[in-house]
Amino acid sequence: MNAEIIAVGSELLLGQINNTNARFLSAQLAGIGVNVFYHTVVGDNPERLKKALEIAEGRSSLVIFTGGLGPTKDDLTKETIARHLGMRLVLDDEAMVSIEQFFKRANREMTENNRKQALILEGADVLKNEHGMAPGMLVSKGKHHYMLLPGPPSEMEPMFAKYGLLALAGKMDGRAKIVSRVLRFFGIGEAALETRLEHLIDKQTNPTIAPLAGEGEVTIRLTARAESDDLAWQLIDGIETDIMEIAGEHFYGYDDTSLMKELSGLLASQGLTLAAAESLTGGMFQQEMTSLAGASKIFKGGFVCYTNEAKINVVGVNAETIDNYGAVSEQCACELADNAARLLGADIGISFTGVAGPDDLEGHPPGTVFIGIAAGGRTWSKKITLSGSRKLNRLRTVKNGSHILLKYLKEAQDA
Amino acid sequence: MNAEIIAVGSELLLGQINNTNARFLSAQLAGIGVNVFYHTVVGDNPERLKKALEIAEGRSSLVIFTGGLGPTKDDLTKETIARHLGMRLVLDDEAMVSIEQFFKRANREMTENNRKQALILEGADVLKNEHGMAPGMLVSKGKHHYMLLPGPPSEMEPMFAKYGLLALAGKMDGRAKIVSRVLRFFGIGEAALETRLEHLIDKQTNPTIAPLAGEGEVTIRLTARAESDDLAWQLIDGIETDIMEIAGEHFYGYDDTSLMKELSGLLASQGLTLAAAESLTGGMFQQEMTSLAGASKIFKGGFVCYTNEAKINVVGVNAETIDNYGAVSEQCACELADNAARLLGADIGISFTGVAGPDDLEGHPPGTVFIGIAAGGRTWSKKITLSGSRKLNRLRTVKNGSHILLKYLKEAQDA
Repeated sequence: MNAEIIAVGSELLLGQINNTNARFLSAQLAGIGVNVFYHTVVGDNPERLKKALEIAEGRSSLVIFTGGLGPTKDDLTKETIARHLGMRLVLDDEAMVSIEQFFKRANREMTENNRKQALILEGADVLKNEHGMAPGMLVSKGKHHYMLLPGPPSEMEPMFAKYGLLALAGKMDGRAKIVSRVLRFFGIGEAALETRLEHLIDKQTNPTIAPLAGEGEVTIRLTARAESDDLAWQLIDGIETDIMEIAGEHFYGYDDTSLMKELSGLLASQGLTLAAAESLTGGMFQQEMTSLAGASKIFKGGFVCYTNEAKINVVGVNAETIDNYGAVSEQCACELADNAARLLGADIGISFTGVAGPDDLEGHPPGTVFIGIAAGGRTWSKKITLSGSRKLNRLRTVKNGSHILLKYLKEAQDA
Repeated sequence: MNAEIIAVGSELLLGQINNTNARFLSAQLAGIGVNVFYHTVVGDNPERLKKALEIAEGRSSLVIFTGGLGPTKDDLTKETIARHLGMRLVLDDEAMVSIEQFFKRANREMTENNRKQALILEGADVLKNEHGMAPGMLVSKGKHHYMLLPGPPSEMEPMFAKYGLLALAGKMDGRAKIVSRVLRFFGIGEAALETRLEHLIDKQTNPTIAPLAGEGEVTIRLTARAESDDLAWQLIDGIETDIMEIAGEHFYGYDDTSLMKELSGLLASQGLTLAAAESLTGGMFQQEMTSLAGASKIFKGGFVCYTNEAKINVVGVNAETIDNYGAVSEQCACELADNAARLLGADIGISFTGVAGPDDLEGHPPGTVFIGIAAGGRTWSKKITLSGSRKLNRLRTVKNGSHILLKYLKEAQDA
């Protein structure tokens, strides 16, 4: 099966938004072994959409449409495809009820044109929309499969992951269940991880093993097909064990977690609180920590001590420490972490001091960073050396800090 | 002239990156009145690329390619187009010198395959690459124009803005100069701004007026064509005056500035320093301020006081203030701003306290925010009411705070 993704929407052609749907669907399809050979974007214009559809049929067996399923007059994807395939549009009762409930919950009056959203191609498998109104659908004719998905990513992504993949699996072969799991790694590059796992990746077709580089992180998506969910998960468990034996020391979490979420979770489960003092990162660590709802239970607060003055007068670093060792030093990092914890009354303190760039500081090149930790009656620091832009250096510093603390808490838990 | 953008790269079809180039180019082309009817993405495969090119020629007069100009064997865009058009590839001396210099600067050995990057389609206008090695080019044959651009956005975007637009202008009509300017607005929605400017937008073809909604901001891109730069800028100045009369109170800056850049610039030019105390924004304001290089000259640092404890013990808010008025109050915002400035020895203090969500706090719904300012011997606060997600509420709070301070500094400057 090879696929083409057709995104419908003039806002894409005007450059108002990125076609993130094509990226999401491509990654998902790669995970189940479907080749995507083309993406196409076309405006809300039925003639041009029809032509794009004809071209796609000439080169792809699966055509996935996103967008144009809404209630207004320029939403024409369904109508255009129905006419092209000679299929009728019929009202789907379940979708209609769900749309009515949507308006009831929102306490808004349903207008007549919303009924249009409950129309489906006759005989299509309906893909439930749990985050909006327009249902998706999958229909087959001749050698071709057509999947229609809503345009807003907040509706499309969960719909495809929950119902779309499964519906496709039914068309692909007799083994109707597809499951997938993402493993997240920190502290190893994509190329290095891929090299270590090469012998597994090469021989593996079910589950598939798909590495993807993120910002300072690497993920591996495992996707298995089997007759039942249980069997598919067993396949994934098996290959995960092999991967963990090879690269387990860099693994930190599953699926849509993040270093900060893992760290916050461990702090909460161990009943510990945190405080921070940030120099080069300028508040980025604290900003990220407090981006998670409920942060006030584990995070006491902290300082942005961008100047030496602030480090000394507000966070209470000894002026002599900075005179003798500089602000970019192990000693300064330790005092910052220690004092942050003490001043905020937190169990643990973390600090970041270093050179974000573009200029050198105290004779250190950009990317020289000390991360201080005060925890369990000890204070220590770790030096890291980065080589990115100012923005990347700050981002990676925060990720490294989260990772150091995460490892410490895990070890404390296991001890 | 109508255009199609063909992005070449298997990484796009694997879902590893978004096709941001298509968005950027579409917005730029919309600005000069070129209709984009299709985007296509195709992998690093010469047969499929050739077919995509043939389809594009059947429906578009301008075909823009991004990607596939690099030194490796799977970079085949130039070669495929040359074969298709029956054109020779010739070495461009200037590009070759620039590639050699690139390696010299980076202190790296140039490998032989890098010479491939200096090859251009014979007779093409060369578009200089000031941020990488592979030059872009524009070539015409019959009724069609073909533009080739490098894939990395950091190379492609400045190349197109500086050289690509100009080269296209030469092909479009006799008036060879195109210039554009972006006006940035805060505190007014896209729909409201568009309604106010409707009579201007409708009658206007040169310059074109293109509004675009950003995150809590709206921009308007003005693009003019004329026989000379001077004449084109005169056209833009004229329409800008009209727009400013109607919506000038919401204007804050030009082109690629931001509220934070403007604020930082004004602080620097007025020789003032700033400190901050953040509750609901958790460090986001300070993180953004310190994301700009050279922040240490104007930014003293500050506090993340996520808990009441931190507000009282570290930032020195009176416990009674919180008992009597709550942490989400004008009084608390004022004390936070005042104390931040005093403790950090800064000229100005800014504070953020409120409810990010998802839960209510002290009986206030999410989106209730007080922003405190201590400046010029006065302290005051402004209440704003937002209605987004937790993430959006925090982001908009920071933008509102930057805007309040920016307006204050501008008024102080004008007074």
